[in-house]
Amino acid sequence: MHESVQQEVQLLQSDATPKCEIHCPVHLDNLRQVQPKLLPMTKAQQMAELFGVLADPNRLRLLSAIASQELCVCDLAAMVKMSKSAVSHQLRILRTMRLVSYRRAGRNVYYGLRDSHIVNLYREVLAHLDEPEN
Amino acid sequence: MHESVQQEVQLLQSDATPKCEIHCPVHLDNLRQVQPKLLPMTKAQQMAELFGVLADPNRLRLLSAIASQELCVCDLAAMVKMSKSAVSHQLRILRTMRLVSYRRAGRNVYYGLRDSHIVNLYREVLAHLDEPEN
Repeated sequence: MHESVQQEVQLLQSDATPKCEIHCPVHLDNLRQVQPKLLPMTKAQQMAELFGVLADPNRLRLLSAIASQELCVCDLAAMVKMSKSAVSHQLRILRTMRLVSYRRAGRNVYYGLRDSHIVNLYREVLAHLDEPEN
Repeated sequence: MHESVQQEVQLLQSDATPKCEIHCPVHLDNLRQVQPKLLPMTKAQQMAELFGVLADPNRLRLLSAIASQELCVCDLAAMVKMSKSAVSHQLRILRTMRLVSYRRAGRNVYYGLRDSHIVNLYREVLAHLDEPEN
């Protein structure tokens, strides 16, 4: 949290946001066209909550492993070099947000991504990060 | 922040994460296959930072408006019922994360999404939220 506050302060101190140089009357045509496509606040809050859960590097690393193939807690812990209990904790959060699901096979439990949207989401973010600066 | 801490406490108090019922030896084959696909920590941190910026309902509403068509700060402010200065502040953060870009047209400045990955990302999250519970 501390880091993000610092980041916001830096942003505030940086150059101002470019905006219209004139007193710009609201363009009613634009408003009418865009208003139906505007995300309702309740949906925006749901989305923000999901992004909040994804804003954690350890959870993202676990998702990247699971995206590749189904894995059990023991394998995941060895892979990301975290304790089994820490991995379990993160998986519980990911499961609550319906990002991962599990499958029992005998006495083993395997975790996988819950739906294909998560894989696509993950790929789009990677692609965005790999976009050139300009 | 307070809410997310509360949520984590609730999660901790909820049922335990299902895991292997046996002392499960690490499956070296799985490790070898998945290791090259595991997200490196530096990349995971970049991704987490991006998701952190998206974890804000007001920013998401602004993105949803801009995703539909290019808009100026004045129109955006009227649309999301925020002050122009608050919209400018959020746009600055979105611009720093390379999520939006702007274009000058005479004395007006129009904001749009920076690349198509953001549109796709946004759609994937909406699709995930609309997935049925089971």
